[in-house]
Amino acid sequence: MSSGSPLWENPLRDSADRRVPRIAGPSGLVIFGVTGDLARRKLLPAVYDLANRGLLPAGFSLIGYGRRDWTKEEFEAEVLSAVRDRVRTPWRQAVWEQLAAGIQFVKGDFVTDSAFDDLAAMTRRMDEERGTGGNWAYYLSVPPQYFSEVCNQLERSGLADSTDGWKRVVIEKPFGHDEESATELNRIVNSVFPESSVFRIDHYLGKETVQNILVLRFANQMFEPLFSSGYIDHVQITMAEDIGLGGRAGYYDGIGAARDVMQNHLLQLLALVAMDEPVTFSPDELKAEKLKVLKATRPVGPFAQTTARGQYTAGWQGSEFVPGLREEDGFDPASTTETYAAATFEINSRRWAGVPFYLRTGKRLGRRVTEIALVFKDAPHQSFSPEQTEAQNSNVLVIRVQPDEGVLLRFGSKVPGSAMDVRDVNMDFSYSEAFTEQSPEAYERLILDALLDEASLFPTNEEVEESWRILDPVLNYWATAGRPEDYESGTWGPSGADRMLSRHGRKWRRP
Amino acid sequence: MSSGSPLWENPLRDSADRRVPRIAGPSGLVIFGVTGDLARRKLLPAVYDLANRGLLPAGFSLIGYGRRDWTKEEFEAEVLSAVRDRVRTPWRQAVWEQLAAGIQFVKGDFVTDSAFDDLAAMTRRMDEERGTGGNWAYYLSVPPQYFSEVCNQLERSGLADSTDGWKRVVIEKPFGHDEESATELNRIVNSVFPESSVFRIDHYLGKETVQNILVLRFANQMFEPLFSSGYIDHVQITMAEDIGLGGRAGYYDGIGAARDVMQNHLLQLLALVAMDEPVTFSPDELKAEKLKVLKATRPVGPFAQTTARGQYTAGWQGSEFVPGLREEDGFDPASTTETYAAATFEINSRRWAGVPFYLRTGKRLGRRVTEIALVFKDAPHQSFSPEQTEAQNSNVLVIRVQPDEGVLLRFGSKVPGSAMDVRDVNMDFSYSEAFTEQSPEAYERLILDALLDEASLFPTNEEVEESWRILDPVLNYWATAGRPEDYESGTWGPSGADRMLSRHGRKWRRP
Repeated sequence: MSSGSPLWENPLRDSADRRVPRIAGPSGLVIFGVTGDLARRKLLPAVYDLANRGLLPAGFSLIGYGRRDWTKEEFEAEVLSAVRDRVRTPWRQAVWEQLAAGIQFVKGDFVTDSAFDDLAAMTRRMDEERGTGGNWAYYLSVPPQYFSEVCNQLERSGLADSTDGWKRVVIEKPFGHDEESATELNRIVNSVFPESSVFRIDHYLGKETVQNILVLRFANQMFEPLFSSGYIDHVQITMAEDIGLGGRAGYYDGIGAARDVMQNHLLQLLALVAMDEPVTFSPDELKAEKLKVLKATRPVGPFAQTTARGQYTAGWQGSEFVPGLREEDGFDPASTTETYAAATFEINSRRWAGVPFYLRTGKRLGRRVTEIALVFKDAPHQSFSPEQTEAQNSNVLVIRVQPDEGVLLRFGSKVPGSAMDVRDVNMDFSYSEAFTEQSPEAYERLILDALLDEASLFPTNEEVEESWRILDPVLNYWATAGRPEDYESGTWGPSGADRMLSRHGRKWRRP
Repeated sequence: MSSGSPLWENPLRDSADRRVPRIAGPSGLVIFGVTGDLARRKLLPAVYDLANRGLLPAGFSLIGYGRRDWTKEEFEAEVLSAVRDRVRTPWRQAVWEQLAAGIQFVKGDFVTDSAFDDLAAMTRRMDEERGTGGNWAYYLSVPPQYFSEVCNQLERSGLADSTDGWKRVVIEKPFGHDEESATELNRIVNSVFPESSVFRIDHYLGKETVQNILVLRFANQMFEPLFSSGYIDHVQITMAEDIGLGGRAGYYDGIGAARDVMQNHLLQLLALVAMDEPVTFSPDELKAEKLKVLKATRPVGPFAQTTARGQYTAGWQGSEFVPGLREEDGFDPASTTETYAAATFEINSRRWAGVPFYLRTGKRLGRRVTEIALVFKDAPHQSFSPEQTEAQNSNVLVIRVQPDEGVLLRFGSKVPGSAMDVRDVNMDFSYSEAFTEQSPEAYERLILDALLDEASLFPTNEEVEESWRILDPVLNYWATAGRPEDYESGTWGPSGADRMLSRHGRKWRRP
């Protein structure tokens, strides 16, 4: 790590400080599906930013694998273009040149033996030329139906052989579409790679504020005592998008909001906010607690009342009039795939019994926001008369995941004046105002962790299967329950979602 | 209340809203010591501001009593001058004219029968001319040695007779200089006025943020569960002044910081932050809880280790070099009167046993600030290793009473970056940013409350005596323990104060 790196400028760091970020050892990364959108927008810029922060080994090698007829130089130009478009750290030519020297391209599809043999030869060449030491991570940025072929080819060609150096596989969601398919997918992957070598990306877990949930809860004394049914009335976990399907409509049809977001991101957030404290933050102990809380989680019925789903119709998104889902190219107008999903869950633990967890996600909603809101019970005894507290709602602790990452408390305070009136006020902590350090992009963090064998932020096969086990009853009910409701673009979802909560005298927060 | 009043512009208020501030009924106010500093700086402007807010009755009468040879017109001009210097609400000539019509002056000392007979005649005249209805509050802004004479004269002249209309007495500290003298003072006052007609001013209790302590704790669910020995390590209550004695040196000699501030303001703050929740906020039930917690409070010894006192020496107060206490005019250089006092208290209740309450006050300290800091215990189990949390201290909840009234939380948050590091951050709620309403000045609130017979914010005779009972052992120890330490002006007090806390591994907050 060079002394000019931004991290070294942190005054809290000195050479005796063991918190210096760990730097990946000798290793290389193969990206399958390198011509895809994810690679261009996220993976390639993340690799450069990691290099620029001094977190990659000097001889790091990046091999692209795809069907294009690219030379090394052409691929290098592609990487450079992607990096320059999206780079988050300052541009440094020397860093780029060192990285570029390790960039290679191998042409191939997912089934041809000779192409994988070429890839194996290239990794061996890099091991010799760049000193990658036989340590390779394979990033499968490809549709899941190819996982099986790619894994089998990696095994056949010797690329998965960890005799000389470690071999890891990084895979992207979707991890199946129900519990059964997820179990089958895990079986295929684990038949080639042991679970300890499988890194499933849930990019939400790479976000700073998601990791901060653990810090808030467990590095402090003032929050954790409140995280229980004794004080919390219910929890709302929201991931709202303002965009519609656009070009993804074909892919999305048949998947829907619950499979796309709730099964992974939202249930992971639920696990982090509800889990008990692990003994340490070692990956194994963290996973044990997450798995424990997921195993205690189930959807609450009757689903006709406790869940809601919708499809967006045309409407005003801010100042723009946008088309409805059924007018999007590639989306079957008869499809019942939902773009909004909300459901009620309960956690059968001593800590959380009786506290509903309401999860919702949707496209074309009022604005883009992801947050966890812990809504408190009202004070058990009100010394203040109702006339004094007309403007007061329940206390809320909000963990804002994006945008405007931070923490917000909402509570009652005295209104200045000669009477004892109470009104709600906000107390705010903003991540970007509090820290001058730049947050690494989620993919930076996750790629580095995979290279470091740091598995804390990756859901395991068991977590993935448990999440499907939790969601399947809702999905099965929806499959037989007719069409989703309509909701207008730019609103906060279908009316059924409001009824879900109003039935119990609650309402969704307007984030 | 006229429709142009600022309070009516509050959008939360409408005519159906029972929270409309109560307006004092027919009544008048007699100020003894009206030529003094307090009357000019605080009482007279507060009367005008109350009138301007529409909270005084139309026929309100203000009678000044003093030794000056003033006519009504001369006194009126004095009041006008004081009001215009200090008024906090906009100037409105019509309000002033209505108020001025009820302003009278009676010349007299505290012993002459005929002067009090003149005053009695004047109150009767006002009852007839202004419709004050025989309802009078007597504000004794006079040295306590005159309380006895004034009370006796009020009784003799019939001014204390509540047969036709209520009669109340408002008195200013000091309420004695130890438990015995306070008891005697209360006996004298209560021999003329029943306790329910005695209003003792502790102007701190008139401050918005002090009243907000009750709202924060009891109108919300998120703070109160944390207010106990289960989570709080210790509490620091600080009232720091940056000014020195200046012209008050003669008065102050023999009193000192503990009697001047700790016995009243600081122990009242302790009572509010530590008391249990009253059934309602009726004065009687509030006082019962305050008294209960005061009765459970005692100073912790050995006082040589658990208390500290000091006298300021010359030094730099900001950019100004200021003289030491013993150079101040009128202060006996041999005096052992302290300008800094700190002591340790404990509360023998189930809630607070084992939690030290550290109280400190002083003059010529680093800056002017009053705050209550609840310092949390460290998290009982640290999943984070010490290298990860190097920059983290204990969590703190700070209630800032003045200036910058508000609430501050200090807790650990994740430092952005690829490691799991923790650093302390602040989360802030500012009263002045949250509310557009202007806070009434403490004296406004307290004078209005006295006219309304609203006794919640006034310490009772029992509270005053309990406070002295709590403090007397410390005062008695100091009386035999030699000289206070020196501390340099502009610092945070004598070194003994630091040792008080460092002995137990704690330290004073730098507010």
